[in-house]
Amino acid sequence: VLFLQMGWGDLGAFGEPSKETPNLDQMASEGMLFTDFYTASPLCSPSRAALLTGRLPVRNGFYTTNAHARNAYTPQDIVGGIPDSELLLPELLKKAGYVNKIIGKWHLGHRPQFHPLKHGFDEWFGSPNCHFGPFDNRALPNIPVYRDWEMIGRYYEDFKIDLKTGEANLTQLYLQEALDFISKQQASQQPFFLYWAIDATHAPVYASKHFLGTSQRGLYGDAVREIDDSIGKILKHLQKLGISENTFVFFTSDNGAALISAPKQGGSNGRFLCGKQTTFEGGMREPAIAWWPGHIPAGGVSHQLGSVMDLFSTGLSLAGLQPPSDRQIDGIDLLPAILQGKLIDRPIFYYRGNEMMAVRVGLYKAHYWTWSNSWEEYSKGIDFCPGQNVSGVTTHTQEEHTTLPLLFHLGRDPGEKYPLSFASDEYQRAMERISVVVQQHKVTVVPGEPQLNVCDKAVMNWSPPGCEKLGKCLTPPKSDPKKCFWPH
Amino acid sequence: VLFLQMGWGDLGAFGEPSKETPNLDQMASEGMLFTDFYTASPLCSPSRAALLTGRLPVRNGFYTTNAHARNAYTPQDIVGGIPDSELLLPELLKKAGYVNKIIGKWHLGHRPQFHPLKHGFDEWFGSPNCHFGPFDNRALPNIPVYRDWEMIGRYYEDFKIDLKTGEANLTQLYLQEALDFISKQQASQQPFFLYWAIDATHAPVYASKHFLGTSQRGLYGDAVREIDDSIGKILKHLQKLGISENTFVFFTSDNGAALISAPKQGGSNGRFLCGKQTTFEGGMREPAIAWWPGHIPAGGVSHQLGSVMDLFSTGLSLAGLQPPSDRQIDGIDLLPAILQGKLIDRPIFYYRGNEMMAVRVGLYKAHYWTWSNSWEEYSKGIDFCPGQNVSGVTTHTQEEHTTLPLLFHLGRDPGEKYPLSFASDEYQRAMERISVVVQQHKVTVVPGEPQLNVCDKAVMNWSPPGCEKLGKCLTPPKSDPKKCFWPH
Repeated sequence: VLFLQMGWGDLGAFGEPSKETPNLDQMASEGMLFTDFYTASPLCSPSRAALLTGRLPVRNGFYTTNAHARNAYTPQDIVGGIPDSELLLPELLKKAGYVNKIIGKWHLGHRPQFHPLKHGFDEWFGSPNCHFGPFDNRALPNIPVYRDWEMIGRYYEDFKIDLKTGEANLTQLYLQEALDFISKQQASQQPFFLYWAIDATHAPVYASKHFLGTSQRGLYGDAVREIDDSIGKILKHLQKLGISENTFVFFTSDNGAALISAPKQGGSNGRFLCGKQTTFEGGMREPAIAWWPGHIPAGGVSHQLGSVMDLFSTGLSLAGLQPPSDRQIDGIDLLPAILQGKLIDRPIFYYRGNEMMAVRVGLYKAHYWTWSNSWEEYSKGIDFCPGQNVSGVTTHTQEEHTTLPLLFHLGRDPGEKYPLSFASDEYQRAMERISVVVQQHKVTVVPGEPQLNVCDKAVMNWSPPGCEKLGKCLTPPKSDPKKCFWPH
Repeated sequence: VLFLQMGWGDLGAFGEPSKETPNLDQMASEGMLFTDFYTASPLCSPSRAALLTGRLPVRNGFYTTNAHARNAYTPQDIVGGIPDSELLLPELLKKAGYVNKIIGKWHLGHRPQFHPLKHGFDEWFGSPNCHFGPFDNRALPNIPVYRDWEMIGRYYEDFKIDLKTGEANLTQLYLQEALDFISKQQASQQPFFLYWAIDATHAPVYASKHFLGTSQRGLYGDAVREIDDSIGKILKHLQKLGISENTFVFFTSDNGAALISAPKQGGSNGRFLCGKQTTFEGGMREPAIAWWPGHIPAGGVSHQLGSVMDLFSTGLSLAGLQPPSDRQIDGIDLLPAILQGKLIDRPIFYYRGNEMMAVRVGLYKAHYWTWSNSWEEYSKGIDFCPGQNVSGVTTHTQEEHTTLPLLFHLGRDPGEKYPLSFASDEYQRAMERISVVVQQHKVTVVPGEPQLNVCDKAVMNWSPPGCEKLGKCLTPPKSDPKKCFWPH
């Protein structure tokens, strides 16, 4: 699984006009392109938790109840993380003999009990949090980079990111880790799961020297080009090793492009409305490509409604395993859609924190709540929908539509600009169908214990395991747990 | 040349999410896709005049001086049309032995002196104006359909369009005409120029019964699917006749999607700003594909800045002819870009009527004037930028920026959302280069006599040639020429 922050409209195959992703476009032409694929949250941590558990964040605990409908994630001071009670894809794959590696950003909690090697992964190269910084190691520590159980350095200290030029060679390190892991598994004839969760397109955006200044799109495009090049190298490596026909590869993203950082630090959601942080299409509809030569018909296009949570169920299916039966799983097995071109009828739910904001059934999307962000934030220039404004839709107050949802037909109107008339027959017919789906969903939702409510500076990455050997241990401040503040 | 009203974002190959254009996508994969191709006006008639003359509308007369920066076209009551002094592509191709046919909408004037067979075409099947209607033949006559010199019926009378269901079989008629013409030319071994100027995607949008209700995108998508299917049949016909390697085919559009009619009667401009009627990218950047098996490398992508006016110069070049030397030609020969992958440095000018609103040089676009439409129109719900609003850019008053143009970098920001800072070095450097280009351009512009100033109900299609035989002659009202009213 290749997983990163890119927008629907960032790939040539999805209409990006500079057409700078030849390797991803070729991956699509050799595999199957999904036009209607979604993440489980418009934000990173909850989406990643959903991918690895096959469950909505509201079930697996990756949400907050501190305020209504707020996006929450795992900054350094978060106290929570992935609960032991959750079963992660690598934990289950292990039972089928898989060796599992995560390369890049984990983001499911950085305290010892949340370590990825305690949750099914065998190897790790990367960091627990975003590569924000540099910090002064007094108010905030720099983010550690781990190899397996222990840290091996910190961003900006041992792993350089030049914020002025945007230069960093991290994607090259992540690429080499991926190639080496694949070679090792092939040599030992062991099945493997590689979760390549790189972050060059997340602000602060970076690229290595060779790619800097090469894109029409500026620094963001340089980062995309480097990722595209790396993915081409990974696929070619699989082919060279003769295991491409035994290796299922899926490319997608954890949230829509961060338009607030665009154009220099953020991508494009094509024609979709708004971006990251919102439950409009631009926040949650993702580029997605499945690749498996000899199995997936080349050049296929699937309109199957898909979700990152499906990668959990599909991954189990590929390994010949059943999903756990003791809990609600939201992901579905996509293999019938991928291999036989079937269309499986299933809804997509758009959550923001503890609230189901919208639901898609077939080509219809009903908004039960609308919100971009607050007037207070907006007036400071924080805009999740730059240049876009759909009256009554991209609202700056939380608007409740639960009695009369706003309804869009995403076939005719993928940009969510033209709500259907409440009085129309089409509205009535569609809402009858959707209401049943929503009722059925709501009775199954038993919210998990919210993990993203409490923050404490004492839990930051002051002294990660391995810091002693490096002389990089820092002294944490006194514990002072507080409710985290989630403004949007 | 295949020429119709579609937006940049209406093709799968350009990122349309429903991916319903397999034939056009295949045409692109066998030929060359242009990502930076423009029409010469955000409106139909001037664009068509520009394509056929290789000259900007302000030169060939297809503009108005009735008010500043107004889009004008050729409704039924227009008095003007294409001047005899203009040399059209088919007139010139004739000298090289070409047989020329126009199928579909002419739109360069409907009075006898403007007849396409007086301007180089040998055959015509189609109409002089848009297929608006039905009219009552008292206040307004229904639009005639011509075969060659004479009308053979009228829309809504003899050529049905069902406005309720959207059903009309016109695209099928236009397809059959094209196939027959191609067969005939192949049989007689004569070179030909076919201008396939169909109009199913122009409001009132229509499709034939077989395609109605087949698209995710509603009626507009049905029309696109039928056009896509027809183009596939034309290309296959060329292959079957064994002349595909001798036939250069180009697909593009005369203006951006009419967002004012979307989603039912209008298409999509992808991520570009606004639509038809505006000089933002959505109004003038067009889908474009060149196809010529055995000559154009398959699957190519060209970032060459191209224009519909280039089809004039390129068409002459293909026929071994030189462009006329006694007048300014704005089109360039695209063959070096198409066959050798060269990038030719040339600007793109964005005119609205008599005003140069903007210019593109390289990846920079400078706006000297901005306007979407008036507050008066906008307050009535006429919106050329639905759901989009870029402060200070999509203005509802005509804003002059001639002393300090608004500057965008279309690589980083194809949606024209983030103007460059006037104080930046980048702004200074880019504007120095652009100013020279604009100065050089302005000295060459000798405006033609404006053809779109005067309207008169007496000149409508009351009694077109051939009406006697059909008993379809109508009595014109008394001549009462007036200044045409162009609101935007």
